[in-house]
Amino acid sequence: MPQVALTTDIGEGYGRWTLADDEALLDVVTAANIACGFHAGDPGIMRRTCELSVEKNIAIGAQVSYRDLHGFGRRFIAYTRQELTDDLLYQMGALEVFARLAGGRIDYIRAHGALYNAAATITEHAQAIVDATKEYNADLPLLAQVGTETWRLGREAGLNVVAEAFVDRAYTPEGLLVPRTEPDAMLSDPEQASARAVEMVTEGAITAIDGTRISIEAEAILVHCDTTSAVDIARATRKALEAAGVQVTRIG
Amino acid sequence: MPQVALTTDIGEGYGRWTLADDEALLDVVTAANIACGFHAGDPGIMRRTCELSVEKNIAIGAQVSYRDLHGFGRRFIAYTRQELTDDLLYQMGALEVFARLAGGRIDYIRAHGALYNAAATITEHAQAIVDATKEYNADLPLLAQVGTETWRLGREAGLNVVAEAFVDRAYTPEGLLVPRTEPDAMLSDPEQASARAVEMVTEGAITAIDGTRISIEAEAILVHCDTTSAVDIARATRKALEAAGVQVTRIG
Amino acid sequence: MPQVALTTDIGEGYGRWTLADDEALLDVVTAANIACGFHAGDPGIMRRTCELSVEKNIAIGAQVSYRDLHGFGRRFIAYTRQELTDDLLYQMGALEVFARLAGGRIDYIRAHGALYNAAATITEHAQAIVDATKEYNADLPLLAQVGTETWRLGREAGLNVVAEAFVDRAYTPEGLLVPRTEPDAMLSDPEQASARAVEMVTEGAITAIDGTRISIEAEAILVHCDTTSAVDIARATRKALEAAGVQVTRIG
Amino acid sequence: MPQVALTTDIGEGYGRWTLADDEALLDVVTAANIACGFHAGDPGIMRRTCELSVEKNIAIGAQVSYRDLHGFGRRFIAYTRQELTDDLLYQMGALEVFARLAGGRIDYIRAHGALYNAAATITEHAQAIVDATKEYNADLPLLAQVGTETWRLGREAGLNVVAEAFVDRAYTPEGLLVPRTEPDAMLSDPEQASARAVEMVTEGAITAIDGTRISIEAEAILVHCDTTSAVDIARATRKALEAAGVQVTRIG
Repeated sequence: MPQVALTTDIGEGYGRWTLADDEALLDVVTAANIACGFHAGDPGIMRRTCELSVEKNIAIGAQVSYRDLHGFGRRFIAYTRQELTDDLLYQMGALEVFARLAGGRIDYIRAHGALYNAAATITEHAQAIVDATKEYNADLPLLAQVGTETWRLGREAGLNVVAEAFVDRAYTPEGLLVPRTEPDAMLSDPEQASARAVEMVTEGAITAIDGTRISIEAEAILVHCDTTSAVDIARATRKALEAAGVQVTRIG
Repeated sequence: MPQVALTTDIGEGYGRWTLADDEALLDVVTAANIACGFHAGDPGIMRRTCELSVEKNIAIGAQVSYRDLHGFGRRFIAYTRQELTDDLLYQMGALEVFARLAGGRIDYIRAHGALYNAAATITEHAQAIVDATKEYNADLPLLAQVGTETWRLGREAGLNVVAEAFVDRAYTPEGLLVPRTEPDAMLSDPEQASARAVEMVTEGAITAIDGTRISIEAEAILVHCDTTSAVDIARATRKALEAAGVQVTRIG
Repeated sequence: MPQVALTTDIGEGYGRWTLADDEALLDVVTAANIACGFHAGDPGIMRRTCELSVEKNIAIGAQVSYRDLHGFGRRFIAYTRQELTDDLLYQMGALEVFARLAGGRIDYIRAHGALYNAAATITEHAQAIVDATKEYNADLPLLAQVGTETWRLGREAGLNVVAEAFVDRAYTPEGLLVPRTEPDAMLSDPEQASARAVEMVTEGAITAIDGTRISIEAEAILVHCDTTSAVDIARATRKALEAAGVQVTRIG
Repeated sequence: MPQVALTTDIGEGYGRWTLADDEALLDVVTAANIACGFHAGDPGIMRRTCELSVEKNIAIGAQVSYRDLHGFGRRFIAYTRQELTDDLLYQMGALEVFARLAGGRIDYIRAHGALYNAAATITEHAQAIVDATKEYNADLPLLAQVGTETWRLGREAGLNVVAEAFVDRAYTPEGLLVPRTEPDAMLSDPEQASARAVEMVTEGAITAIDGTRISIEAEAILVHCDTTSAVDIARATRKALEAAGVQVTRIG
């Protein structure tokens, strides 16, 4: 029976601001990438999101980021490896308290936004993610796309790297994400997205933006939380996966 | 044989900025109140300060603060109890990672600056300090001045509250600190300060600013790090304490 | 023919986050209290809000605040008078650029949130608002509630202080606002709120929360932007004022 | 008689932290690159630095930066052109208030740190500096190194671009700065630095790090403020320039 974890970014408000319908999303996913205060999230939100996650038996992921509240962590910042490692560890420690108070723990690590993207090709930043994960807890799963620097260095370091794929993003023939700035980069139709999720998991292959067939590895699949149809996509995906006989599991 | 811990605030730089001669101070004190990033301190500084502390066998204190980098945590902020509790827990968790990586752990908790002062009389903020300490680790010592709300509520909650006194500050006849804004509030002469430290510890009494004799309890005594004579005061104090047969110990 | 300005707080997003339906509100009000980046607002939002305001012939107000993004400027901070003055001037200067680029200028000054409330009674903070306004441009109108320290000191300093009242807030028999934490502090019914707005302006009196009749001065009336019915209240108020023969004007 | 402006970065403290001996440097230079709060500097420091500058008849430069207090503006951030333009304009407006209150005005614009360096080659960021300067005040001089994108685009846009060179940095044979991370990148000997400053201005040529002779254009020369010998280098440079018959002038 095929398995996959269904994840989403969550807890991405800050102070007076909210972003997504967190409660609705947490009713559908099995793993929550929780913002740790550097691109979004604050201590109160982190506490509540951890409580909800434990209550709903959802895995807690530390969604670590560049220090960039104004840019929501979506701008590359030219950190040194050591500076970045330390900033990521700080976030992991901060989240851990709230995970523990809620009766859980950090179940896995994932990089957010520009850091996730940069670390696909920039060795120094991929290395910082791997360093921080290893220093924090070398047994924790690290989410990464197959073929990226994060993937390569994480495996080299002996980490449990979990293959991640995207439900609501178009792929290039090379298996990379079509940049958000291009048309048709985002899949907003729940039918289309959920069908592709099933394809990813059961066939290990999808159709790229140019119509070619590419293979893809997906132990965890991500639904973005900040699109208008996020909750619909998440629900349709979960339903379609279960209908296809896929077991939707936690991470870690 | 009388005992006391000698503490100082430390790790209070931020990014490009430094504040005190941290290395020199860490050669003298036995307990380091380490800034956790909200009034000062950053992940890199926290890592290095924890490493130095463990190397020199100094107790690691989480010096938690209001979220106020620009005001260096020296301005009262009207937090609610819950908001403040969460902000303090976040800082404790962040520091813990670096303490652990250095081979140590958080040995005690102390509030910084305006929070420390406000919590002497404002029940809600004292309660937040106590709540956060208890949630984080109810076995950890909490530093507080005798007679403050923090002291009272900490003991009520069953915490191990450690009596703190100040080497380099003048006291009122009521046993409170003379506000920094008044003349003679700070003792800058190492001779005078160290003599008073010995008096505090061995006699349990000092002379207040008006000449009256007041009793004082001191299980930990603090030397401020950001005065010009900080290192001299710390060294003179340690020497005088040892000459007087006082055992200078760690906390926790 | 009676006159009044209809204002709202606006531009209160930050980076990835938005708060209210700014465009809809700017179609109804005549004066925009634009956030300047310290409690909300960022340079891009300030630019667009100024452009929209000039396009719709709406007065531009500098909505200055404590430096507290996480608390949305809703927590008192114990600034000194000089520190606060400087922080307010910084915000005014920043907004001015975008007002000027849009073809407008800062038409008036207003304090936001906790600063507005604190300055009602705390002389030092009221004085900072008055100092900053005077240093920035002594000819600019300053919005304040009648009877507050800001009102008193502003007039003493020779400023053009504009009497402000609230459409969607309950009043105590003393003419003060019922704190948000109490039940019935907010008026969320557009009918009720707009009827009261007309009463304020045409009769100079309203009914307080205990049923007593109190007099009130209102040259500018504020509709909050972050309630669920904000746009409805604003529209109903504008319509009711015009139906009652009130001229809804700009400020400055 | 040859002319040059002698500049330095200044006002680079923040809250409790200070960086350089600002007063001593302002006694020597003729143009002050004043930090505007995004990499360093705060409203109080900006006010005092403007007051000192006007008092000593020193030109006021807006030293605009990426939004990066923790990184001191020394890390590249992948802003879009529009976002960056807006962030720079915000800083200019904020500084203007304090310049005006001191009896002066912004006399020129200069980019700080990583932004200055990035804009040498990254067109989008150079364009943002040029856009912001032009929108703010198209008559203001903009400091830039000859041969950079900032230089090229600034001139293309019709700005008054002032050629800047560095007193205390080694140059490559191509006329670029040797990166700070390499040995011998910084010149710390006042004799050597001041001799080179004279050479730059009177001969229009210097010796690069490999011994080759390169031509260089210098209408303004910069002494860094945060090296240990900053004040000595600045004094020696001023003295040497005057001894060589160079007129040390303001900018703008």
